[in-house]
Amino acid sequence: MDFVIHPQLLADCHRLGKVRLCHVLLHRNAIVAWFILVPETEVLDLLDLPDDLRHAAMDEAATVARFIKSRLGYEKINFAAIGNVVPQLHLHIVGRSKGDPCWPSPVWGHLNEAQEYSTVELERIAEMLECNCALRRAIDR
Amino acid sequence: MDFVIHPQLLADCHRLGKVRLCHVLLHRNAIVAWFILVPETEVLDLLDLPDDLRHAAMDEAATVARFIKSRLGYEKINFAAIGNVVPQLHLHIVGRSKGDPCWPSPVWGHLNEAQEYSTVELERIAEMLECNCALRRAIDR
Repeated sequence: MDFVIHPQLLADCHRLGKVRLCHVLLHRNAIVAWFILVPETEVLDLLDLPDDLRHAAMDEAATVARFIKSRLGYEKINFAAIGNVVPQLHLHIVGRSKGDPCWPSPVWGHLNEAQEYSTVELERIAEMLECNCALRRAIDR
Repeated sequence: MDFVIHPQLLADCHRLGKVRLCHVLLHRNAIVAWFILVPETEVLDLLDLPDDLRHAAMDEAATVARFIKSRLGYEKINFAAIGNVVPQLHLHIVGRSKGDPCWPSPVWGHLNEAQEYSTVELERIAEMLECNCALRRAIDR
């Protein structure tokens, strides 16, 4: 059966593609670099995953975090698995910089400014992820 | 050299002890079960840790999460590594329940009610952690 990403995540994010275990989404709010990884699992809490799957998901998160720092120029990463509103397991990997519009608050419930990605910016990010994180592109995004 | 826990974490939390890699703190606000793990490392971002250390820290976080669910009766775990205010790496493992005073918001910046642990409650939690998570108790807390 095809794995189905929660519709709220698809509404909030651009769907960029997939790495080995996780689908890679990019939050539509371009104020900060806010990636969301959705591991293909029915488990709801990150810390309930079997060790091998949790390690694999965290390795993929670390790859995206390195990309955010090295290629997008952010100095800090906020990482979280919350899931109080959207129960499907999803991992937030957010690039932060001192003085960004939300600093030092976490983005969840505190990000009041919004900005959209252009098609060109989205294409550039997806291309860099193909090269740096072995992203396989989604057909639709 | 002795590892020094950031004074803000010590001000916000009870210091319960240490497991293999991480110091175990319990946030003083007893409204939710809010544990904080501080791995003995100078690395600031969870996703910058070398793979083996990150896996070890996450394994310890998973042990605490199982404890929160199975022994303290919470149904859901929120996990995060933020560090925008206190730069020292620390992992939030928060027990959540539908209908708790902050639900469904994350606790960071949204938890407006407070309650203190009694000495008896603290002792009980530390004893259970000794038994369930191989906690070595701190002298002072």
